[in-house]
Amino acid sequence: MIIDKNRVVREPRITLVGAGPGDPELLTIKGANALKTADVILYDALVNEGVLDYAASGAIKVYVGKRSGEHSYGQDAINQLMVDYALNYGHVVRLKGGDPFVFGRGYEELDFAAGYSIPVTVIPGLSSSISVPGLQQIPVTHRGLSESFWVVTGTTSSGMISNDLYEAARSKATVVVLMGLGKLREIVQLYQNEGKHQLPVAAIQSGSTENEKLAIGIVDTIVELVEEKDIKAPALLVFGEVVSLHPSFQPIREFYEALKEEL
Amino acid sequence: MIIDKNRVVREPRITLVGAGPGDPELLTIKGANALKTADVILYDALVNEGVLDYAASGAIKVYVGKRSGEHSYGQDAINQLMVDYALNYGHVVRLKGGDPFVFGRGYEELDFAAGYSIPVTVIPGLSSSISVPGLQQIPVTHRGLSESFWVVTGTTSSGMISNDLYEAARSKATVVVLMGLGKLREIVQLYQNEGKHQLPVAAIQSGSTENEKLAIGIVDTIVELVEEKDIKAPALLVFGEVVSLHPSFQPIREFYEALKEEL
Repeated sequence: MIIDKNRVVREPRITLVGAGPGDPELLTIKGANALKTADVILYDALVNEGVLDYAASGAIKVYVGKRSGEHSYGQDAINQLMVDYALNYGHVVRLKGGDPFVFGRGYEELDFAAGYSIPVTVIPGLSSSISVPGLQQIPVTHRGLSESFWVVTGTTSSGMISNDLYEAARSKATVVVLMGLGKLREIVQLYQNEGKHQLPVAAIQSGSTENEKLAIGIVDTIVELVEEKDIKAPALLVFGEVVSLHPSFQPIREFYEALKEEL
Repeated sequence: MIIDKNRVVREPRITLVGAGPGDPELLTIKGANALKTADVILYDALVNEGVLDYAASGAIKVYVGKRSGEHSYGQDAINQLMVDYALNYGHVVRLKGGDPFVFGRGYEELDFAAGYSIPVTVIPGLSSSISVPGLQQIPVTHRGLSESFWVVTGTTSSGMISNDLYEAARSKATVVVLMGLGKLREIVQLYQNEGKHQLPVAAIQSGSTENEKLAIGIVDTIVELVEEKDIKAPALLVFGEVVSLHPSFQPIREFYEALKEEL
């Protein structure tokens, strides 16, 4: 092993940073400050690369995300890489899309680092579950419409939709489904089984970025609308009366009200 | 009316900004940039005043929050003030604790401004519901423990606990209750009715600030612990197996495991 005597050996430490939904300005000031002092940055597919501009010019940037057709790292490999870089280079920022603890497997990384007695700091990020509907001016809660919101993963580790979605479809909560676009038909079926055919639904792709796309409809029409508008992952789904507050829901409401009067 | 001819008349506009949970560095970069260009800032009780340091020195800062014993503004008065300032001064930043749409009544303000055709931009903030547990290294989701999280208000507009809490207590979701400390006994009763006596619970006061306090226990002990540790509002509650990941839960687990072996 060749030892570079000029390299300052820094205390190993890890900062788990949530990068937010995409727009680099939606990073926190604390997150940007962590990036400025990072020796190494490990970042995911869901992180907008513009966020990396906050890093010092000498920082090592390592892409560890999964994109179809490209080499990808498993969780174990990411954990090991993170620890190895910390032991060899000092301050590692583990940069994750959204918030590290919202389906981000952040705790697994934190736990792995703890096994090496490497101190870990957490800097939360804007979760897309709240911020992406919010940027579309769809509030996850609103007096008279919703007293709670429930955030569920569409795809569990087993590849199935979460059992929690069955209950969520029955509840009065605003339901936000992350990673659920591929299971849209199945999820819609749950709502139809509950008789909620006309519940307002939004599907939002790549919220806060230039690739943002929106489809707004009801349970019975959302599958068709998502196809029409060619909405692709990453996307989230919002089920709930709060979606009716979006301006583009107004014509839909008028259509169903006119239909009701005719009957 | 006296018209100041030297005053530049600016286009009225409103930016609804989420200030995050407390720590001023947990504001987004976009939020800080909005503050820099604000002519007027209307801010709430839950906003840490350190956040106002990002504002330009000439900005008018108006406190519109509610603190016991002080004058407070009703929602209608805040709406009107916001619009009046925008029409007279230009860019108003409406700064709210956490995220504007998580029990923040942000949509009501947005809707009111729309009635005057004043353009409104939304800049989401870190909701305490995710970020405050996260800063304590309690992940709202974790493989094998939680596939979803449900955020509920403890106090609805009628002053009662939300009906959604009855269902939430039955569910397998991590349940985060905001503004629920005053209803802790009632909420605990819901969990006890479901037989969830040993479900891990955390109560966190003033997360991310110097006044932060934490109590960690189980459903059957949390009321006593909150009194012992003198936890006061603003505080949030986390009910769920994920709370067991916090280091201070380890002795509690060991105690109950030893108890089980004895029986």
